[in-house]
Amino acid sequence: MVDEIIRPYLTTRKLYPENQETPIHAVNMAALPEELFYLRNHFAYPSLHEESLRLHIAGEGLQPRVFDLNQIRMMPSRTVPVVLECAGNKRSFFKPGTFGEQWEKGAVNQGIWKGVPLSYLLQMAGLKASAREVVAEGWDYGTRTDLPGMFTYARSLPIDKAKDADTLIAYEYDGKPIPYKHGFPFRLIVPHWYAMASVKWVRRITVIDHSFQGPFQTIDYQYYPEKNNDAKKTPVTILHVNSSIQRPADRSTLRRGKHTIEGIAWTGLGEIKRVQLSFDGGNAWVDARLWRLPHQPRNWVHWRYEWDAVQAGEYSVISRAEDTNGRIQPMEAFWNRKGYGYNAADQVRVNIE
Amino acid sequence: MVDEIIRPYLTTRKLYPENQETPIHAVNMAALPEELFYLRNHFAYPSLHEESLRLHIAGEGLQPRVFDLNQIRMMPSRTVPVVLECAGNKRSFFKPGTFGEQWEKGAVNQGIWKGVPLSYLLQMAGLKASAREVVAEGWDYGTRTDLPGMFTYARSLPIDKAKDADTLIAYEYDGKPIPYKHGFPFRLIVPHWYAMASVKWVRRITVIDHSFQGPFQTIDYQYYPEKNNDAKKTPVTILHVNSSIQRPADRSTLRRGKHTIEGIAWTGLGEIKRVQLSFDGGNAWVDARLWRLPHQPRNWVHWRYEWDAVQAGEYSVISRAEDTNGRIQPMEAFWNRKGYGYNAADQVRVNIE
Repeated sequence: MVDEIIRPYLTTRKLYPENQETPIHAVNMAALPEELFYLRNHFAYPSLHEESLRLHIAGEGLQPRVFDLNQIRMMPSRTVPVVLECAGNKRSFFKPGTFGEQWEKGAVNQGIWKGVPLSYLLQMAGLKASAREVVAEGWDYGTRTDLPGMFTYARSLPIDKAKDADTLIAYEYDGKPIPYKHGFPFRLIVPHWYAMASVKWVRRITVIDHSFQGPFQTIDYQYYPEKNNDAKKTPVTILHVNSSIQRPADRSTLRRGKHTIEGIAWTGLGEIKRVQLSFDGGNAWVDARLWRLPHQPRNWVHWRYEWDAVQAGEYSVISRAEDTNGRIQPMEAFWNRKGYGYNAADQVRVNIE
Repeated sequence: MVDEIIRPYLTTRKLYPENQETPIHAVNMAALPEELFYLRNHFAYPSLHEESLRLHIAGEGLQPRVFDLNQIRMMPSRTVPVVLECAGNKRSFFKPGTFGEQWEKGAVNQGIWKGVPLSYLLQMAGLKASAREVVAEGWDYGTRTDLPGMFTYARSLPIDKAKDADTLIAYEYDGKPIPYKHGFPFRLIVPHWYAMASVKWVRRITVIDHSFQGPFQTIDYQYYPEKNNDAKKTPVTILHVNSSIQRPADRSTLRRGKHTIEGIAWTGLGEIKRVQLSFDGGNAWVDARLWRLPHQPRNWVHWRYEWDAVQAGEYSVISRAEDTNGRIQPMEAFWNRKGYGYNAADQVRVNIE
């Protein structure tokens, strides 16, 4: 059948380094297959070699250890569903615009990750009480426009987040070895944080007794509220509460009658409690129905509303999510110079004929 | 090598019917391969059957004729490079927004088409002087939101354009049979007109002595300057003069120094004469260098400018093309309700660090 060869593709933002976006409006799945998993890279893909299969653990008061993939696969494992959302997801919606990849709604992914808890490895290496942060360093490296020299992609976690039972050194995605472009063989998986924390191609874990000063920690992935100076900068960490309308498409024309409005919602604190829709610019709100998988409070929720569009005209359909921590999507996003953490209520325009 | 598997994809706008966009910023080719050729459909793909391989010609004073693919392949042929641009290309840039597929810059394609001149077939059928328009009807059909009933995709050409030596019943794209999604086995190819005229899956050609009134002729593909009424509507026909910046990407950050700015430009009247760039909002303009293939005046031109960005700061880079008919891209597009023919000067924002 001809119809069977109709398929969505990643949206190409940039090829070198590769940055491609999930066509989130065209998918309807609880876990995304590799070919629809957005790609976000700071640098060229690292070369694979024998050493890539080893993970080094060292630092502050630790017994330096090296584990290879086979050893790590034998350790106690956890398998968790995780929403990975790029800190720059929806950046293209900021007004005024901000520089960086112009992601629309698709720099977000949900999938199942399996790995060994980072805390287990840290305990094996003899973690001390003086430990303050844990640095994960990837195999990828390259230049930056703002500093001379070469840089490895590296990020740190506060010790408490590093010790969280669900913070993993993952080695499987969706029941298979992690795809090469997503971090094979080891990816640090940090649930509930924006995905810059989930370092790909991890080569070394280093425990430190101070705060890490790498440029991907202290220059990038900071919220800068001011356009022209760095005052009041704060680090990007936990996912904001967020929702996206998947269908209908923005600027689509529909007949009068019943139409399903559907989408996803997620948060980094607690669970999604409610998703509401407005058809009048944010005055009146109705509740959408949530479709939550059992025992997966961390997942994005699917939501749906059957809209009876009885009158012709142009409508804005607005969605906003609320989490169990009382966080609710604002009508306007918090503007910041590097364009992170956009989470304003989502909106599509629909023409009813 | 890992790098070899980095490739651009079509950008998914809608799956049913299939509408996917060329990643024009990520390509650099004189002719686009099938997998990067944008897909624009009003309806589901038609089924293929034996009758699809036959073309009917009938109408006003003609001897009705039926030709099959083999017969048509034996006729005198022409092979021409053609820019096909969807009338809605760049629709997403209109302000205020307009309804319809939200194409960015990639609903445009260049390729080589081979076929028999439509005029040859018309002569064989005994074209009369009373002929006024020629209607091409595709195999694709379906419903509309604004009218009850089923409609076949059909469009007419004025008789003079139908008799133009380069208006073809094409059966090859890029040296091979036309890909199914692009009109196999027969596609009407109308160079220099927006691509709604290049009817896919042509089943029947009908000569008429009046003006055709199908909805894809008289409702769609008309410029409506007024938001709320149909006053002063005019048909969409010849391609406007246009240009697109392919590189650098919008909202990208670059180091101080030399950078290549490059793109394409095309027109439906005459040839591209000049492409200019402005770095100061449209006051001063510099000429880009054009790369034109010999003997292909109809092609899009590739253009390029080596920019020496000596000072840090934010820049708008604006491109505008001029054709040999004296048409030049305006700074603001002509707004029209259905969002056709956008051709304002193109623009990207760049941050120099």
